[in-house]
Amino acid sequence: MSLSRDVSPPRRRKHWGWGFEDQQPPPEQVEAAAAAAREQLGFAPAEVERPVPLGAIELPPTRLDAPASLAHICATGRYERVTHSYGKSYRDVVRAFRGRFDNPTDLVAHPADEADLERALAWCEEVGAAAIPFGGGTSVVGGLEPPGDRPSVTVDLRSMDRVVEVDRTSRAALIQAGATGPGLEEQLRDHGLTLRHFPQSFEYSTLGGWIATRAGGHYATLHTHIDDFVESVRALTPRGLWESRRLPGSGAGPSPDRMLIGSEGILGVITEAWMRVQDAPRFKESTAVLFDSFESGAEAVRALSQSGLHPSNCRLLDGDEAALTGAVRERHEGAARPALLVLGFESADHQLGPRLSRALELCEDHRGRVSARESCARSPAESAWRDAFLQAPYLRDTLVAGGIFVETFETAVTWDRLEELVGTVRERTREALGGDGTVTCRLTHVYPDGAAPYFTVLAPARRGDELAQWGEVKAAASGVIAAGGGTITHHHAVGRDHRPWYDRQRPAPFAAALRAAKAAVDPAGILNPGVLIDP
Amino acid sequence: MSLSRDVSPPRRRKHWGWGFEDQQPPPEQVEAAAAAAREQLGFAPAEVERPVPLGAIELPPTRLDAPASLAHICATGRYERVTHSYGKSYRDVVRAFRGRFDNPTDLVAHPADEADLERALAWCEEVGAAAIPFGGGTSVVGGLEPPGDRPSVTVDLRSMDRVVEVDRTSRAALIQAGATGPGLEEQLRDHGLTLRHFPQSFEYSTLGGWIATRAGGHYATLHTHIDDFVESVRALTPRGLWESRRLPGSGAGPSPDRMLIGSEGILGVITEAWMRVQDAPRFKESTAVLFDSFESGAEAVRALSQSGLHPSNCRLLDGDEAALTGAVRERHEGAARPALLVLGFESADHQLGPRLSRALELCEDHRGRVSARESCARSPAESAWRDAFLQAPYLRDTLVAGGIFVETFETAVTWDRLEELVGTVRERTREALGGDGTVTCRLTHVYPDGAAPYFTVLAPARRGDELAQWGEVKAAASGVIAAGGGTITHHHAVGRDHRPWYDRQRPAPFAAALRAAKAAVDPAGILNPGVLIDP
Repeated sequence: MSLSRDVSPPRRRKHWGWGFEDQQPPPEQVEAAAAAAREQLGFAPAEVERPVPLGAIELPPTRLDAPASLAHICATGRYERVTHSYGKSYRDVVRAFRGRFDNPTDLVAHPADEADLERALAWCEEVGAAAIPFGGGTSVVGGLEPPGDRPSVTVDLRSMDRVVEVDRTSRAALIQAGATGPGLEEQLRDHGLTLRHFPQSFEYSTLGGWIATRAGGHYATLHTHIDDFVESVRALTPRGLWESRRLPGSGAGPSPDRMLIGSEGILGVITEAWMRVQDAPRFKESTAVLFDSFESGAEAVRALSQSGLHPSNCRLLDGDEAALTGAVRERHEGAARPALLVLGFESADHQLGPRLSRALELCEDHRGRVSARESCARSPAESAWRDAFLQAPYLRDTLVAGGIFVETFETAVTWDRLEELVGTVRERTREALGGDGTVTCRLTHVYPDGAAPYFTVLAPARRGDELAQWGEVKAAASGVIAAGGGTITHHHAVGRDHRPWYDRQRPAPFAAALRAAKAAVDPAGILNPGVLIDP
Repeated sequence: MSLSRDVSPPRRRKHWGWGFEDQQPPPEQVEAAAAAAREQLGFAPAEVERPVPLGAIELPPTRLDAPASLAHICATGRYERVTHSYGKSYRDVVRAFRGRFDNPTDLVAHPADEADLERALAWCEEVGAAAIPFGGGTSVVGGLEPPGDRPSVTVDLRSMDRVVEVDRTSRAALIQAGATGPGLEEQLRDHGLTLRHFPQSFEYSTLGGWIATRAGGHYATLHTHIDDFVESVRALTPRGLWESRRLPGSGAGPSPDRMLIGSEGILGVITEAWMRVQDAPRFKESTAVLFDSFESGAEAVRALSQSGLHPSNCRLLDGDEAALTGAVRERHEGAARPALLVLGFESADHQLGPRLSRALELCEDHRGRVSARESCARSPAESAWRDAFLQAPYLRDTLVAGGIFVETFETAVTWDRLEELVGTVRERTREALGGDGTVTCRLTHVYPDGAAPYFTVLAPARRGDELAQWGEVKAAASGVIAAGGGTITHHHAVGRDHRPWYDRQRPAPFAAALRAAKAAVDPAGILNPGVLIDP
């Protein structure tokens, strides 16, 4: 007799890092990988630590006791509370790795439907608890961390994960907020459709989280954020349903959807949305182009973004990032390392040869050297980069264990300010690291009027003092971005971590308007307090 | 000695209809044109009336007296008050034609800069007057009509009409809100750039008005509304400047711009905006395709809108509209009249032949018959339709004089509901007209998930009772649109005329949030009261 698949225990996510428990490599593998990473980065060898086991984590007792009407959807066990108290920023992983949970959530609710959710919100209002919407738990900006001043209920929406309805004619689908990337794509595949929204967190993050945080996705141009795929949204506020009409376009007042998109859970809990979906692409063209410098590559990318050719992929990696991710395999040193443009087109309707040809002419106008052109396939450089991109969150757990500081941050800025901003961010971030470490940059999304640079910082961690180190790097980089005309976030959201710079970026009357709007729909201020605005 | 150009009187806009005074044809021409129109439409001949002259209009005396600090920018003369009290809807033109101004604005302020504007708003708050932002005065939804319950100041922004700065690298321009379409295009032309936003009101309407009303423009697909061209907005609220950062894209909270876009003057007075501009197109492809029915044409248009080909022009005219505008010249009767698709592509960067070829394949898949394919030029059908489109507001003045009721309204709806909605609107509107008259339809903008149908109603006017007739038609059409899943407006805005249906369309918590947001930035409720929400 063997255990059938049905009775095997469900896979559990790691309590401190990325992925499932069964994906964590054994300690000896982590040690070897960490040592290799330190060597590749030129850091001296260091001890590899092990995470504090779940059982050894000390949690303050919960302050909440669910009423009978909610008991069946509520959990207060150690694993549940630990895995719902942090997101997945470097700071979160370090704290969880070291077993430090000073202010965990008190209770996790798993509503199965809107009726459950409505009861849970009413109870939070009654007992004065914060209600924190939780999707994939992949926030990297402190967007789901409990506030310190009151008990908290984390509302995990992952039981609401269905594609409820598909309108093939209009190419739209009604999808519940808790559906993960793979979950919703699998259900759409039965209809020959796809949402094609692939953030780095795709495996775990959810539709509701994407909408609440204005997530950035697959497309490097044109439809860069989830915003453009939202046809209508349904959210539950403490004062009723905020549900917009399914519309392909409208000019009826300020968009009610655009007010919810990016609201990070402070106005209501998104429960479902009609999304614009697509036929799967049948035509693909992909290539890689090398440039002598990031600056000349950026000029080519600007020409591409202003051409109206609309590449689906148009990611420019600086020399260090191209080398670190294996996208460029030849050996080059320092400034001589070429920048790499990963360029791709896709369509469900038509051949893309003419578009790619014109795009390559534009690259050649800026002294780009085409390294490979392939139809209907990924170029080797793109494959290497893509693998590195998808592995990055897993790798980070190993880097934390191996004492390597790793942080990413991103912005968007108009073209006229890009070069100076990127240069200053590199410089000040290196200064904040005390001269150690590497700061790489890529352009992840591009627009006719500007680009979104994304920075990766790797440095020897100050063991035991990582949170202070993180704070110094974050402050240095964010200060430069704010002063240099960028946005404090292009697609990572604001949460709690970006508040100081966000508060300066947003217009003051808008902040007053948003605060008043929240008070109108959430008078008790239970929804994700401290995120975006002060309670 | 001859009069120099400098001392000739400035051109004045007609006090009751569209265009300048010197563009109004002499009475005998109006009589001939009105008679010809009635004959073409199959209506019995009728008397042609003349407008009440400006001097014969009786106005209630103004209730406001500008303080010394504002006197130099304020006017209370008859012409100023009359030309700032109505927009340009059929209802507005009829009332002005008959000299009926029961509730005119009390005073017109012409701020030269933000300092003037700030003083004007402070004075309105002090004396309890409504402040009504006014751009081109082309609202067709009662968006700038004074409220009945208090004195009103109309704030005419047309003195703030400059292109202040151009960023060629980022292809963006800082433009003042009072710049008209031709005015801003002329200034951009010096830099080789264009905004390419061409609503029907282009000659007179202004950038600020476009942003405040989410105006629809040139492009039939992709960038259909002004929304997509806004990089940042600056607006003056009674509680300070609401100015966003210039950004190509952002994920930092709900977009502050998207809250102002479509706010119709209730949150602040838009003073300037950074706009995404473009190189003028060098490549154009245009053609016209005939379909046996509007329905088969709509199927082809759906395929086009879901193809990712992004035509700049993709307007489908039903048989009656194609015939009435002269776009189809062959004689066909009734249901046999073919529907016409005006299809065009344009680019500043690349040849469009492959795109047009694929688009025509899609049309042929739906039994479309290509009538002309021409590079770098307008097809004759497009030219005829475009001429009719641009002349329509002028023609309407003649129709009003000739006793012809003319109303247009529009919506957007998902593809799955389009056919039924269009059919029901035609049917109920004809019923509301008592069986007389013509209801034509075109699709003006199309999306992967739906389309924007635009209706034109022509019928014998109930002389002297036109306002009641208008109310019956408006209620019938709007009721069908609301019940059929459409938006009450795709690009005409809400104003006062669409309020009853808008109030039902928008989510209730959103209305509460918007009301609270307004109260936060305009606590005295002076800004355009009664538009979008109740005071």
